[in-house]
Amino acid sequence: MPDAMTTTPATTAVDARTDTAADPSSSLLVRACRRSQGEGLPVWFMRQAGRSLPEYKRVRQGIAMLDSCARPDLVAEITLQPVRRYGVDAAIFYSDIMVPLKAAGVDLDIVPGRGPVVAEPVRDRAGLDRLVPREPGDLSFVTEAVGLLVAELGATPLIGFAGAPFTLASYLVEGGPSKDYARTKALMVGDPELWDDLCERLATLSAHFLRTQVDAGASAVQLFDSWAGSLSAADYTASAAPHSTRVLAAVADVPRIHFGVGTGELLGLMGEAGADVVGVDWRIPLGSASERLGPAYAVQGNLDPAVLGAPWPLVANRVREAIRSGASAPGHIFNLGHGVPPETDPDVLARVVDLVHAEGPGIRADALTP
Amino acid sequence: MPDAMTTTPATTAVDARTDTAADPSSSLLVRACRRSQGEGLPVWFMRQAGRSLPEYKRVRQGIAMLDSCARPDLVAEITLQPVRRYGVDAAIFYSDIMVPLKAAGVDLDIVPGRGPVVAEPVRDRAGLDRLVPREPGDLSFVTEAVGLLVAELGATPLIGFAGAPFTLASYLVEGGPSKDYARTKALMVGDPELWDDLCERLATLSAHFLRTQVDAGASAVQLFDSWAGSLSAADYTASAAPHSTRVLAAVADVPRIHFGVGTGELLGLMGEAGADVVGVDWRIPLGSASERLGPAYAVQGNLDPAVLGAPWPLVANRVREAIRSGASAPGHIFNLGHGVPPETDPDVLARVVDLVHAEGPGIRADALTP
Repeated sequence: MPDAMTTTPATTAVDARTDTAADPSSSLLVRACRRSQGEGLPVWFMRQAGRSLPEYKRVRQGIAMLDSCARPDLVAEITLQPVRRYGVDAAIFYSDIMVPLKAAGVDLDIVPGRGPVVAEPVRDRAGLDRLVPREPGDLSFVTEAVGLLVAELGATPLIGFAGAPFTLASYLVEGGPSKDYARTKALMVGDPELWDDLCERLATLSAHFLRTQVDAGASAVQLFDSWAGSLSAADYTASAAPHSTRVLAAVADVPRIHFGVGTGELLGLMGEAGADVVGVDWRIPLGSASERLGPAYAVQGNLDPAVLGAPWPLVANRVREAIRSGASAPGHIFNLGHGVPPETDPDVLARVVDLVHAEGPGIRADALTP
Repeated sequence: MPDAMTTTPATTAVDARTDTAADPSSSLLVRACRRSQGEGLPVWFMRQAGRSLPEYKRVRQGIAMLDSCARPDLVAEITLQPVRRYGVDAAIFYSDIMVPLKAAGVDLDIVPGRGPVVAEPVRDRAGLDRLVPREPGDLSFVTEAVGLLVAELGATPLIGFAGAPFTLASYLVEGGPSKDYARTKALMVGDPELWDDLCERLATLSAHFLRTQVDAGASAVQLFDSWAGSLSAADYTASAAPHSTRVLAAVADVPRIHFGVGTGELLGLMGEAGADVVGVDWRIPLGSASERLGPAYAVQGNLDPAVLGAPWPLVANRVREAIRSGASAPGHIFNLGHGVPPETDPDVLARVVDLVHAEGPGIRADALTP
């Protein structure tokens, strides 16, 4: 890894920006979402902002997660860090899926190394009424942070960020992260009326969170339904999709990326919920995912984050494979199949970005030539 | 839940046994594996022996997990407990996937609430040579336990138990349970020679463990590759399947069940590795799984264990759905999609068994009638 790559992040970032048009709405990322990217291949990483970056750890020192999300200056700085360092083709709004809940008054915390924790989980109607309000809270700190970011990012698009109702509900029902979502599913199956009321409230909060980001200047959005892959297609259709559809419908004026892990059986349904782009993890080649989705959807993904620790030539081969496989889709945004793991060496991500930018158009041109 | 159901477990067990032939090799379970079960539907549960049963907690008091697996009397008692209580159509050998490694001298422990933990994980060749021997250890305690069981079980078949090399390797490389298998995959992709050496040793130990159980009288086996679903089909084919194939080939004289979670993309490959029956989790209807597998394989599954906490009528509907969907497969063994969760109410499992026995043949007969 040459030192130059990490000592000149600003140059890299500027280079990437000049590759795109002056307006983020005609950026490579937005064009890929709209299925008109040509040979260009945008790249960004889920969780590019945050836990794997030393500059992030420095600015977060002594500041709790949810506090950091409520400080516009800090949100802007953390969101910009990976754009400066890597020259990625999009920024993703630094936040947490629980932020709109916290802003609405939900009593919860983010415990380091564990995740969102709720002291009194929702187990019945009284619990729901006690914990989750029907009205969104004040998100002026979001508006302010997005304003700062859009001014700074120029032509680089900002992707708005929110959690989907099913994934949010799983934390509120379990009380924290879960391996099997047993209480969540038991409530979902056992009391559909209470479940729908919970998810409607969460959809309102998430939709408002995304709408606020779009109104303030975000050029696209990504809805994270990280744990939807734990559901069968029948359960997803009956109990999760209708609520995600409501959230996505609230921001239909910008491209919408819809993401989950282990969602091979759900890809088509996640598209139909109102997405322009469907996230694909590493379990399925992008070409196969695109076949399942049909011509109306772009794909995003799908490098396995777990192989980032392998020797570089092997990582590079995987990157090239993903580019080749994604070329047959009507649109492809290069990304990982899930978030950047905390222990990732940022230099490896820098090399991935450089490789995608250097070789992506050539590989795509070869693949796109009949 | 009538009291009678839990106070007369012995009767239930005897009833179930008289449903099958006198010899476990012609039992309903074995016939389902061989795709000649007719309208009958065998049922058992992964992890039916163990953590969810009060009688298990009583006999395990003060005895460490790996110690309990090395005591033939205790292994036999724990294996028999769910057969007595539920009248299931098969016993599964009570053990742990790490038992053959421990017997071979691998320095590891099972930490309650966490799982297998290895103090000095395998990270390089020296680590491999230090940790994992090439020769199996003495498994006479297994032979003795199986002998006790076969004598006691009569016509009820005993399913032999072992972990697949990929899943075993993940514990040895990570040092314990993992969310993303990052070190495992980095080693697998980055040093295939070391990876194959590790998995060959693990295949030898697992094959010997299964062979010992079959030689002592087990009527079928199940190979647990619980975490294989974290791999793409390409990685599974290159790095996991060849080793599992070796294990399954060692016990080709009995029916072989091959199980993993989240393996929708791998079902065909798991069959081709040398299985008669492929385990299917709740993410795919059994009928669809069987279509992917083709006519040469039976299926096992696939009630979502997370819905066991829902009100009984809803659980019953799910059971009926799984029976209906499984009827189109050339063979169906009713089971959960993964292990019994620790907090499961045993009375619910008793009702599931009774429902499968009472309604299974009728639902299958309806579905099988052209």
